[in-house]
This record gives sequence, structure tokens and C-alpha cells, in this order.
Amino acid sequence: MMMRTLTASLLSIGIMITSVHVFAANEPIQPIKPVKPENAEMVELGKMLFFDPRLSKSGFISCNSCHNLSMGGTDNIKTSIGHKWHQGPINAPTVLNASMNLAQFWDGRAKDLKEQAGGPIANPGEMASTHDMAVKVISSISQYREQFKKAFDSTAVDIDRITTAIAAFEETLVTPDSRFDKWLEGDKDALTKAELDGYRLFKSGGCTKCHNGPAVGGNSFEKMGVYKPYETSNAAVGRMDVTGKEEDRFVFKVPTLRNVELTYPYFHDGGAATLEEAVDIMGKIQVNREFSKEEIANIVAFLKTLTGKQPYFKLPILPPSNNATPRSQPFE
Amino acid sequence: MMMRTLTASLLSIGIMITSVHVFAANEPIQPIKPVKPENAEMVELGKMLFFDPRLSKSGFISCNSCHNLSMGGTDNIKTSIGHKWHQGPINAPTVLNASMNLAQFWDGRAKDLKEQAGGPIANPGEMASTHDMAVKVISSISQYREQFKKAFDSTAVDIDRITTAIAAFEETLVTPDSRFDKWLEGDKDALTKAELDGYRLFKSGGCTKCHNGPAVGGNSFEKMGVYKPYETSNAAVGRMDVTGKEEDRFVFKVPTLRNVELTYPYFHDGGAATLEEAVDIMGKIQVNREFSKEEIANIVAFLKTLTGKQPYFKLPILPPSNNATPRSQPFE
Repeated sequence: MMMRTLTASLLSIGIMITSVHVFAANEPIQPIKPVKPENAEMVELGKMLFFDPRLSKSGFISCNSCHNLSMGGTDNIKTSIGHKWHQGPINAPTVLNASMNLAQFWDGRAKDLKEQAGGPIANPGEMASTHDMAVKVISSISQYREQFKKAFDSTAVDIDRITTAIAAFEETLVTPDSRFDKWLEGDKDALTKAELDGYRLFKSGGCTKCHNGPAVGGNSFEKMGVYKPYETSNAAVGRMDVTGKEEDRFVFKVPTLRNVELTYPYFHDGGAATLEEAVDIMGKIQVNREFSKEEIANIVAFLKTLTGKQPYFKLPILPPSNNATPRSQPFE
Repeated sequence: MMMRTLTASLLSIGIMITSVHVFAANEPIQPIKPVKPENAEMVELGKMLFFDPRLSKSGFISCNSCHNLSMGGTDNIKTSIGHKWHQGPINAPTVLNASMNLAQFWDGRAKDLKEQAGGPIANPGEMASTHDMAVKVISSISQYREQFKKAFDSTAVDIDRITTAIAAFEETLVTPDSRFDKWLEGDKDALTKAELDGYRLFKSGGCTKCHNGPAVGGNSFEKMGVYKPYETSNAAVGRMDVTGKEEDRFVFKVPTLRNVELTYPYFHDGGAATLEEAVDIMGKIQVNREFSKEEIANIVAFLKTLTGKQPYFKLPILPPSNNATPRSQPFE
């Protein structure tokens, strides 16, 4: 009798586990898995560099300035602030789950996080330094050289290693355990009726054609303005800048919708201040749908379930500059 | 026999403990004690606010921008960068151990950390917001109101509570356990001969007349340029701005020398890039001494033993703005 009960229990557990897997596999969105870094010393080095404003000419702007890990990995500004308050051309995409993107930047001009990390350091309108200067600054500091030794088994500092380490840190910035992921993994009470209605509409409305996969986006380039043109004064033409092809005008990397509640304002120009506005516009121009107020509210409710567990770590203490370290030049 | 040995041991331990206390008490510098916060929820709220750039008009500048806790509680810039890259009039003093200052700001115009915290928020050249706007932003966010409830037992948000919480967090930012403190507490091997020589010269040279107490400064206002005038193009006149008295021209709060290795550049104008330069100038203009190269090296070696255990805590995750939260205006 006991044996039969046990067997039955194990059987039903087996069925449950199988059904969860099958269930999640049938959905266009997959759960985010936590990341176990291979090289913890490399991640620590990358974290230090990510927070170090000495990678900028001014000594004031770090990677975290525009990809603020207190604020969903963004700056929550329409277009970013760079060196000498330069107004950036485009909205800073979140660094959270960015490792899942098929390429980096809105136009996909960097193939991966490592290549991306080198961009802002040397961009005159962003951190306004040079790779050469970044290497001079970091390599002048013995505590950094020691950390490079731990990470790379050599104290040599170059831009390749600086960006490799930053990318290794960024790869850890994933956000598992959202309520939506809990639902995907079988917890049927994780979502409210409105949230579930929103998700069904998100699928039936055609949103998952582009916003799918673990990152709910990030895995294709698509035209902004399929059924109607997107109205903006922003000059960015997207993918066309990379390919030179007219057909790639206004083609952008589809942004991840993970943590979208935190990453306002929305679109490449930051043109939509609220999620309601963003859903309304997307409906009209991308899937040819005039969503009702209630439909929009439900989709927004669903989108807010995509907020995952944020990376929560100790603020790194940076080693000080010494007499050999080139000084920052904030006003030159 | 055993009893006698035990008594003798206890006696000698007693003598040791007494001699340590007497020893530290006879020195002009006292060890820093760790702080046990009374209200942990208040400190947590203050930490969130300290890192929240929504207290600025731009949404880009937080308290931590200029008092960066990765970098000794400073920005390591001669004079700070404010709203729209405004060049500040004065060097940002460290927030570390700032609770020990007799007053805040270089000219002591704020009587305590709470009063200080309100200044930069509303200064057009710093965070460029208003107290009214700061309250509107923070009070619009339910997660903040909940944290106010935990800290103050009421969800009401006002500028008094905002600055009270920031000050409560700042009061925890003390840096005990420096090598010099270990020496003060009786560990005679904590300092090298050069460091000890430097400390003796620091005392005999007259530096401890102003740089004394647990913070090695911060407890008096003194004239910058006692024996010779201090040469600077910086327009700050110091204490005179507060008192209106001509005799207070170039009188400034003596800065703490705790963590001075981290808080470059030095003086109210950030005019000294290195510790060697700072010691050389101080010798000449404040105590009428031309320190030799070796003497300067020893004093600098001593000063570097004042670097304590840095506050090491998790970067706070900030609650997102919602549709009712006033948006930042970075370019207006």
C-alpha cells in the first residue's frame, strides 16, 4: 500500500515536471536562467572597470552612469548625457540581459558586449577618452595590475583585456525569477487574470513575432514603422548606418522587454514616456492594432511581470590613482 | 603556583591594556570607532536617496556623483561638475567621516550633515532641482513611501525627512581600522620606520595643531596661508562669506586627513595634485617649514596609513518612477 502511494506520488511529480517543461517550451518566451561565471576574478575586475569614471576623459562618467544598475541598467533619460553634457543621439539600451542580444547598440554595429564596451570609452560625445589613455590610466595602478594578474594570469593591461573584463561582468547581469518566469515554470498563481489576459493579447496581437525568446526581444532587427511611419525628430536611421542599404532605413534591433518597467522612456529616441504610450504606438505602427484602454492596461500589467531579480552586489571600492596616473581633464 | 602564574598573567594583561589606553590618549590623533546605526531602515532609505539621481533636475546627478563611495567619497576632480557641466567653485570634500566635522562645506555654512544635504539638491550649479520637486518625485513612488513608513513610522515625505535620512546614511560612512589606528591601539608593528618618522615630524612640525582628533582635522576653522599667502586663482574667500568679517577671509574648515590617499586633488581649490605637493605647500605657508624631499616622503608615507576600511555595501536597487512621477529635464 505504502509502496503504491509512493510510486503514484513519484509518477505524478514526474508528470508535473514534464508538463512544466512542455508548457514553457510551447510558449514564445522562455525563462531566464541564472549565470554561473567561469572566472570570478575576471567578473570582479570587470565590475571595477564598469564603475570606474577614470575610463572617461572627465573622470566623471563611468559605464554605470548611463547603464545605471540601480535603475534597470539604464539612465532613464530620453537620450544620454555625455562628455561636457553632450546630448546623445539615442536612448541608452539596458545592459541587463544584454548578453542575449544578437548584436549590440540599436543598429547592431557591435557584434558582442566586448566590442560594445570599447565604443563609449572613445566616443567624443560619451566618455571622450581614447583606448590608449584608458590603458595608460588603468595600467598605472598596481592594484589594477594585480587584479589583471588574477583574471588573466598576467599583469599586462590592454584595451582588449579591459573590454573582455567589462563584458565578463556584463554577462552576469541577467535577471531571472520574474513573476512571468515563475508562471512559465509552472506556478499558475504567479500571474493575475489581467496579467494573463495581457499576455494572451500580447501573443494574439502579434507582439511575440518580434518580442520572443528568453529576453523577449533582442534577437532580430526589425523595421520601426511597419504599418504606419514612426513620427520622430530623432535623426537615427538604424541598421542602414551599418549596412549602407536603403531597405535598412529605420531598422533597429528589437529591444528586450525584460525589466521594461524599469527602462523608461521607450524606443530608440526615448519618445514614449510611459508603457501605455509605448504599447499604443507599437500596436498602431507595428501590428496594425488599435488597442483599447483596457487592452493596453492588461498588456502593461503583463509587461510589468517581466521585472526580474536585479543584480544585487557590493559597490566596488576602486584603487586610487597615484602620481604616475594621468589625471582626468573634465573641463578641457 | 598555577594561581600565582595566572595572577601574574592577568596583571601583565591589565598593564598592557592600560598602557594602550594611556598611549592613544597621549597622541593628538584618536582612533575612529565603527558606528552602530540606531535606525537601520532610516540608513537604508538614506542610502537609496544618496544614490538616486532623480533628486537632480537632469536625473543624472546623485549625491554619489561627487561624493563617490567607490573613490573615497569624492569625485577626484579639482572642482566638481554640476548641472549642464557647470564647473563648481570648490573641491568636493569627502563624505567619509564627515559626521565628525564641526560644520559642513569648506566655509562651514551648514551646521550639520542634514543641513548640508539640502544644499546641492537646490543649487543651480549642482543638482539644480528644488526641494519642492525632490519631494514631488520621491513621494510619487509607493516603494519610497513604504520605506519612509519603515524609517519614520509615517509615509509622509518632506525635505526635512529626505535630508534626515541622507544624513543618517552618511553618519555610517566612517572608516575605522586604518593601519595608523592599529598602531594607536597598540600594534607597534603596524607602521614602518619611515611612516613613524613621518608621524613624528607631522607632530613636531606643527601639523597636529590643526590636524588632530579622530578625523585628523575637521574640528576647526583656520586661515589658509599663515606664514605666506596661498597662491590660487580660485575666488573662494571661505568663512568670510558666512560671517561677513574681513578677518575670516581665506579661513576654511580644516579638512580631515583620513583616507587622504583617496581624496586627491587637495585643498579647497584642488590646487595640489599630489600628496607630496600638498605637504610641501602646507609646510611653507602654514607652519613655516621647508621640508626636505625625504621629510616629505616620510610624512606622505604616514598620511597613507590613515586609509581606513571603506564602507562596503550593496548598491541599492531604486524603485522605478511611475506615470505620476515628474520626469527629469536634462537639457532644459
